[in-house]
Amino acid sequence: MPFSPEEVEAHLQKLEGWELEEGRWIVRKFNFSSYMKGIAFVTEVAAISEAFEHHPFITIDYKVVTLRLTSWEEGGITGVDIKEAQQYNEAFEKMRSAD
Amino acid sequence: MPFSPEEVEAHLQKLEGWELEEGRWIVRKFNFSSYMKGIAFVTEVAAISEAFEHHPFITIDYKVVTLRLTSWEEGGITGVDIKEAQQYNEAFEKMRSAD
Repeated sequence: MPFSPEEVEAHLQKLEGWELEEGRWIVRKFNFSSYMKGIAFVTEVAAISEAFEHHPFITIDYKVVTLRLTSWEEGGITGVDIKEAQQYNEAFEKMRSAD
Repeated sequence: MPFSPEEVEAHLQKLEGWELEEGRWIVRKFNFSSYMKGIAFVTEVAAISEAFEHHPFITIDYKVVTLRLTSWEEGGITGVDIKEAQQYNEAFEKMRSAD
């Protein structure tokens, strides 16, 4: 069963930068200092999502990478989405601290 | 100056898979046999777009990668968009023939 809207909001308060969109996606935009850094982040995102067997919808708009997560088969946001979002944030922080 | 709609259509007839969208983008969806092949294609696309200094809007929806090109500063489609789209098609064909 997916989280209730209240449960999603409680999780999002601990998840920097992510917001609920249309009640069934969590979304974060990641900004990079160069185009190729954004692309490097996307390859990290891809590796993480393969490990989870759960793939976000990704857009790349020059230096801005946007990730959208949902659990289609559950009809909303589940613990997998939250855990995966945490890993994307960690990968982003690691890249930023190496910058 | 951007191409006229007729000029764009003439170019698109020689450009497999690309279509005009909303009068000011050219768009193609590329389908892959695996998620990571799509990601590998995106890194090729990134290298090509850096060489052109002209970056497509990219979406990754599992095994489907969509590229959208326009020349913002010209307000439409120009020769750069067409040349870049040709290179994306060549990169895609090369990956497919190695598959």
